[in-house]
Amino acid sequence: MFDAFFRKQVIPAETRIAMLILDGLGGLAREPGGRTELETAHTPNLDALAKQSALGLTIPIGPGIATGSGPGHLSIFGYDPLEYEIGRGALEALGVDFELGPDDVAARGNFCTIGQDGILTDRRAGRLPTSESTCLVEILRTIKIDGVELFVEPVKEHRFALIVRAPDLGAALSESDPLVTGAAPLEIHALDEPSRRTAWIANEFLAQARVLLQNQSANMVLLRGFAKFPVVPQYPDIFKLHPAAIAINGMYRGVARLVGMDVLEVDGTSLADEFTTLEKHWQEYDFFYLHYKKTDTCGESGDFDGKVAAIEEFDAQLPRLMALQPDVVIITGDHSSPAVLKSHSWHPVPLLIHSKHVRSDGLEGFGESACARGSLGLMPARHVMPIALANAGRVAKYGA
Amino acid sequence: MFDAFFRKQVIPAETRIAMLILDGLGGLAREPGGRTELETAHTPNLDALAKQSALGLTIPIGPGIATGSGPGHLSIFGYDPLEYEIGRGALEALGVDFELGPDDVAARGNFCTIGQDGILTDRRAGRLPTSESTCLVEILRTIKIDGVELFVEPVKEHRFALIVRAPDLGAALSESDPLVTGAAPLEIHALDEPSRRTAWIANEFLAQARVLLQNQSANMVLLRGFAKFPVVPQYPDIFKLHPAAIAINGMYRGVARLVGMDVLEVDGTSLADEFTTLEKHWQEYDFFYLHYKKTDTCGESGDFDGKVAAIEEFDAQLPRLMALQPDVVIITGDHSSPAVLKSHSWHPVPLLIHSKHVRSDGLEGFGESACARGSLGLMPARHVMPIALANAGRVAKYGA
Repeated sequence: MFDAFFRKQVIPAETRIAMLILDGLGGLAREPGGRTELETAHTPNLDALAKQSALGLTIPIGPGIATGSGPGHLSIFGYDPLEYEIGRGALEALGVDFELGPDDVAARGNFCTIGQDGILTDRRAGRLPTSESTCLVEILRTIKIDGVELFVEPVKEHRFALIVRAPDLGAALSESDPLVTGAAPLEIHALDEPSRRTAWIANEFLAQARVLLQNQSANMVLLRGFAKFPVVPQYPDIFKLHPAAIAINGMYRGVARLVGMDVLEVDGTSLADEFTTLEKHWQEYDFFYLHYKKTDTCGESGDFDGKVAAIEEFDAQLPRLMALQPDVVIITGDHSSPAVLKSHSWHPVPLLIHSKHVRSDGLEGFGESACARGSLGLMPARHVMPIALANAGRVAKYGA
Repeated sequence: MFDAFFRKQVIPAETRIAMLILDGLGGLAREPGGRTELETAHTPNLDALAKQSALGLTIPIGPGIATGSGPGHLSIFGYDPLEYEIGRGALEALGVDFELGPDDVAARGNFCTIGQDGILTDRRAGRLPTSESTCLVEILRTIKIDGVELFVEPVKEHRFALIVRAPDLGAALSESDPLVTGAAPLEIHALDEPSRRTAWIANEFLAQARVLLQNQSANMVLLRGFAKFPVVPQYPDIFKLHPAAIAINGMYRGVARLVGMDVLEVDGTSLADEFTTLEKHWQEYDFFYLHYKKTDTCGESGDFDGKVAAIEEFDAQLPRLMALQPDVVIITGDHSSPAVLKSHSWHPVPLLIHSKHVRSDGLEGFGESACARGSLGLMPARHVMPIALANAGRVAKYGA
């Protein structure tokens, strides 16, 4: 309800907003009373900026909920993440940088092995090497079905993504994976009327795959998680922004595309390369989302020191953004990934908003403790964009 | 909406949660800038625990609302208290430890006096002594109505509880109490179809009572607040917990039973006896609710020093819980009861959550001021359980 109201208040302006997302930024100390990863890192640039910024903590989904990066990003982008669900098939396609369109139904595929009797003997075909499954994907790409475009994309090991493109396809389908060995793969059924044709296509794909793969090491495939890309209100429409995304990994590029951002090509894979892309396109857009993955990778693998180093690497790049004189800077994460938990967690996420119009809290350092005392308080992540837009002079007064 | 979503995310685990409710915990200083009851109390154990915990303040119902213990408890137990109303009759039955079932309709009863013309002369029969009303209850227990079980329970002074047990009874009834003297008691009317039989039963009870009591000091009764026990989602179902409740007073035992807790017998009535019960059953359950009444009793009677002493008594028992090594500890209240107000109040309630996964705030002391600076912020009381369950490893990640 607030979302709909807010969108009516948005007005255009000649200002630039930069949103820097350190994936899994929030952390935990290794012992009670100790310092988190962010508090341990030596971050002179972040600290100086924090002192002149408003700080707070965000809740991505709700109290107690650890979130995946998909819903976590939708939330920090300003959406109710429980309203727009991104299905598993869509995530798989995003992950390999496939540009899902509105006519696409995506599914997650597994190469598997079946016996002569058709009974599953290995749901993952021994987790066959990616090099091998990439060759098998080439075989699947020869499948043709009338009136439909098919895309098969290798993922990793036994996994691939299948995308079926045709107008008006439903995605409410049962799955062919029985989830246990010793049973035959299941026929796929439509769960609603618009999905009947999709079910027929999926079963036809499976029948052709069985014939084509019969002499291969992995001689069958399983399909599950059928999903369309959710239709999400677009940034240019709702926030009157001309937005660009800078991210290396497919999934983040995909979520950015979902909300209507132009996804820029990065020449290289380092954070420095991402900042170079930012500098190069600075004049062309008025909103930049920049995604930094390493903080989450280290958090999930339990590498406390690695996460500290990743944050320090980020700090070293920060002056390059500030030299561009953005009107509003947001620095936060999509969720917490404390190294001590080796996983995403429910803990609120540090947030910094800088502009010449914020009430700067004057707090020392950018860390979880300082953010807990910040004037932005503990807020739903989707309230960040309204505050950023206001600081950018992009929100009209309500009422007289 | 979040509640329904959250329940789908709950998973089982081998962890134990202890929720300690100091009734009416929140207080007020006696003069501006002074210390509240909790801040005045000498609480070395609470203070040491607080330093390694996350602190915050809870809002039981909503801003500005002082709540009774029934809705206050539903809220801290994780429910929307405006969704599940506990009617006055049900509260009266709970208060005397009556085990209300799904077929029961409960009403609050008053002994009263009427003149020969049937006109009310005293709605409370001079607040007759409990000893006397207990004898009158014995007379009412002789009333028989076909096809119905009746229970009459003494409460205090002129009050009693009536419980009517039969399948499919409605509880939408008008009241017989005209709320003023100088009028006759009213006939009871059904306000919906399923309550027609209940209305007939209630009027028949009143007719028989009038005959039986005609020569007594209190020669009539009034009935009001007809209510069934609300059907509330059960802890084992929604939170996958095997929960136990430790409480002395009937009302708290009743609310705990309402949400699906096993109510344990306490051998004695002191807080030490309650902790002994906790120790005795520690291995049998994975969630414990322990209720401490004295803080509220002192608050409501305006006894500031008594409330301070009650908190110190609690502090002395706390090490007995910590010795059991619970995975998660919640210490809070169901509402505030500042001694200076001699009543329940709307003030947010101090909250402490301890586990090895919390971000410990390192704040000095457990009190209203420290809690106002805590990282848990100012939150609806019903968000406490989600956070506690997350800390107990009992919530699945959402999305990928």
